[in-house]
Amino acid sequence: MYKDATLSEIESALNQSWKAFHIYRKMSLKQRADFMRAIGREIDNLGDELLYVTQGETNLPEARLRNERTRTIFQLNNYADACERGDWLEARIDTAIPDKNPPKPDLRKMLTALGPVVVFGAANFPYAYSTAGGDTACAFAAGCPVIVKAHPEHPRTSTLIASAILKAAANSYMPAGIFTHLYGASFEVGRTLVTQPFVKAVGFTGSFVGGKQLFDWANQRKEPIPVFAEMSSINPVFLLPEKMKQSAAEVAKMFAASITVGVGQFCTNPGLIIGIDNDDLKFFKNVLSEEIKKTNPGDMLNPGIFKNYVEKRSAVLSQPDVETIAVSGKDPVVNQGVPTIASASAQAFFKNHILHREVFGPFSLIIRCKDTGEMTEVAKQIEGQLTATLMATDEDVKKNPDLIESVKNICGRLIINGVPTGVEVCLSQQHGGPFPATTDLRFTAVGADGIKRFARPICFQNWSNELLPDELKNENPLKIRRTVNNEITVANI
Amino acid sequence: MYKDATLSEIESALNQSWKAFHIYRKMSLKQRADFMRAIGREIDNLGDELLYVTQGETNLPEARLRNERTRTIFQLNNYADACERGDWLEARIDTAIPDKNPPKPDLRKMLTALGPVVVFGAANFPYAYSTAGGDTACAFAAGCPVIVKAHPEHPRTSTLIASAILKAAANSYMPAGIFTHLYGASFEVGRTLVTQPFVKAVGFTGSFVGGKQLFDWANQRKEPIPVFAEMSSINPVFLLPEKMKQSAAEVAKMFAASITVGVGQFCTNPGLIIGIDNDDLKFFKNVLSEEIKKTNPGDMLNPGIFKNYVEKRSAVLSQPDVETIAVSGKDPVVNQGVPTIASASAQAFFKNHILHREVFGPFSLIIRCKDTGEMTEVAKQIEGQLTATLMATDEDVKKNPDLIESVKNICGRLIINGVPTGVEVCLSQQHGGPFPATTDLRFTAVGADGIKRFARPICFQNWSNELLPDELKNENPLKIRRTVNNEITVANI
Repeated sequence: MYKDATLSEIESALNQSWKAFHIYRKMSLKQRADFMRAIGREIDNLGDELLYVTQGETNLPEARLRNERTRTIFQLNNYADACERGDWLEARIDTAIPDKNPPKPDLRKMLTALGPVVVFGAANFPYAYSTAGGDTACAFAAGCPVIVKAHPEHPRTSTLIASAILKAAANSYMPAGIFTHLYGASFEVGRTLVTQPFVKAVGFTGSFVGGKQLFDWANQRKEPIPVFAEMSSINPVFLLPEKMKQSAAEVAKMFAASITVGVGQFCTNPGLIIGIDNDDLKFFKNVLSEEIKKTNPGDMLNPGIFKNYVEKRSAVLSQPDVETIAVSGKDPVVNQGVPTIASASAQAFFKNHILHREVFGPFSLIIRCKDTGEMTEVAKQIEGQLTATLMATDEDVKKNPDLIESVKNICGRLIINGVPTGVEVCLSQQHGGPFPATTDLRFTAVGADGIKRFARPICFQNWSNELLPDELKNENPLKIRRTVNNEITVANI
Repeated sequence: MYKDATLSEIESALNQSWKAFHIYRKMSLKQRADFMRAIGREIDNLGDELLYVTQGETNLPEARLRNERTRTIFQLNNYADACERGDWLEARIDTAIPDKNPPKPDLRKMLTALGPVVVFGAANFPYAYSTAGGDTACAFAAGCPVIVKAHPEHPRTSTLIASAILKAAANSYMPAGIFTHLYGASFEVGRTLVTQPFVKAVGFTGSFVGGKQLFDWANQRKEPIPVFAEMSSINPVFLLPEKMKQSAAEVAKMFAASITVGVGQFCTNPGLIIGIDNDDLKFFKNVLSEEIKKTNPGDMLNPGIFKNYVEKRSAVLSQPDVETIAVSGKDPVVNQGVPTIASASAQAFFKNHILHREVFGPFSLIIRCKDTGEMTEVAKQIEGQLTATLMATDEDVKKNPDLIESVKNICGRLIINGVPTGVEVCLSQQHGGPFPATTDLRFTAVGADGIKRFARPICFQNWSNELLPDELKNENPLKIRRTVNNEITVANI
């Protein structure tokens, strides 16, 4: 039913995108924001039909999908508000000083759209990080047309969402080509999209192998383009000694829930827990084991992700120095992920890279260290992460500056006494991190700062007020905040 | 005298850098800024000895070097001020909403240093874009230690500047490893530096071949790292018809000066002039020719750049459809660049990629078009540029929206009725642009926004006020501007 797009279909779609770009990027912030809000309304208008289709394609429970739909619409509205507020434009004005030697010209800078953006959505967030998800919303806010390659595991969902976007586009008088929806189960479609000259940026959420491949293709182009790929993360949790003395049981219960929520299929799932091998950790393991045994296996998103979980999990469990600590007390049926906790020593972790790999699903590996010095060594050997978590008292933090510094190096978001799952959509959020968590640690995939992934500065020198874009005109018709001669102000010039 | 650094010297230097990173990045904005200002003072303290050494190495005239030294110290002070002002940190705070469902945690985000930065300086700016130039200043402001590979064409200058930096570092109680100065005429040293794991970013100013090579090495690492390479640019100038009718002679004189200033050795040198083949353009060419004939050849920076100029210039002049319009009336001696203007039709330009290449020196190629439609076609075929210039009346701009849009696509800075040479150091400046002008069009090499090239966001979730960095504490002890619950404020929380 869903045939891969051919080369000529892709080329013709991208020609349309390129034309749309020159119209859309000149549309006002308000027009863009209204379009984004209209998409949210059209998604809502799809009604519960959407939820049922997605349930069939992803095995995700209805309540979860209902929440995710709400989140997706919230994101569209939140980034629409941010788009209109205009802080993301980083509008900067330095007025001329003609009697300086040499004379200082009038210089005005703002961010402007990169061009058509190709978005590859996620299997685990069929709404919030897929067709009308965060990347699409950020690209629209920035002024970029979007080309979505439908996720091959939920093409019907993607088609419904695409229809909502196209309806909103028509009702908002958007140019043809503002949004393109293509199918492509083969990697050829992905390669063609990323290597076409009219494509100017890529957003991706998914596996390391997929994201890294897109990154490489994009960099090998005659004109390399930015790729923001959010890929793998094991989200290490460091259990510090004083905190563990105080509340090992409480911490264990908190993480049992975080490890198994959504059958462990979140990019912020805590897959590695690092503690000191003492009685507190034993108590923690016991409580965690009890909780895990009580947690039922759950349906995974699709057979590919299930197979991957089974293989990666058993690869870790079969390593010589790995002990299986707890497995759900209920046997799984096909396609179900079985909650599992294993354990290994820090020395085993140092020697065996298989223990560093993400096992996408309800799995976590406990690393036993001699002391906080060895915990610090573990932190230094962990690759880049979306998040890292400290379970620690204030005293723990103060006593272990080297550990804290080492953990800072590897993550985009550093949580204390909380769980990494649950990614609030707000401006202060950072959903990104050092490679291989993402391909560009200077940006975020969640929160309105994500708009900046798809924009670049352009500076207008010596332009007459009339010809400047509204964002930079003397009278500040959009009433946005601008940095004028180093002061942030909404005032006229 | 200047021996290439060995692998073990490089490794030991980078170990020091990495250690310094963990101390320096925690130093206050004020300490960083004071250090940067101290570097400026120490460069000043080098006295005129510095100028004489550089003159010997670069052939640049004393007056120019004096100005460039002033500019370099200004940059250090300007970025120091920006560092302390703290807007670049993009501090954002969203306070907790515990009764939200699910509860919203306290999230606080700011930019933090990437890690040790390797800087490769420019031949044509031995101070302002070299050892203590813009990249070094931005990295220090961001909280990064710097490793400079001395430019092989001005190693004595680089050594003197390095001594000033090291003196300032000692007097400012900076950690050992905050700054490292290495020699390396071979490309092996560059490759080793860019591929070492402790190096987390690269700044480069120079040729396309050099910058692209660093970019490729950095992307092929196990952990790819950001490279900001500022490379080639021909800085096209579009002569619009009404403006030409009004003031062809004036425009010609302006550009004769801009093409030949500094013997054409600026990255913003206007190397391509696109006009409509009519009487106004003939008049323009005549006046420009007269000016160029009157301009003497000038000493180029070094034999490599001279040889390159001779070869690239003659490659263009020897193309079948290229006409030589004007050459300086005075014969050059060895190592002198001879001011030259050539001309070709748009059709020849479309067919022959040699006409698109940068000829680094006092050279410009005039492209004759049938009409503004053909000018637009030329704009569409030009690669990414640092700058583009329109010589145009307001009416010209209004009448040619397609041309203006096409020109916007290819440049970082868009000048109207001015020359691209002369790059003001201020926040609104954009010195960057689409590939191949730079390897990352989302950043600038000039102005305090350049600091952000070497920083990444980190988010603190649920931290106690006491443990947060000062930048994010409730009481805002640094009095920086922060976005608190979407409002920009210096107020406490």
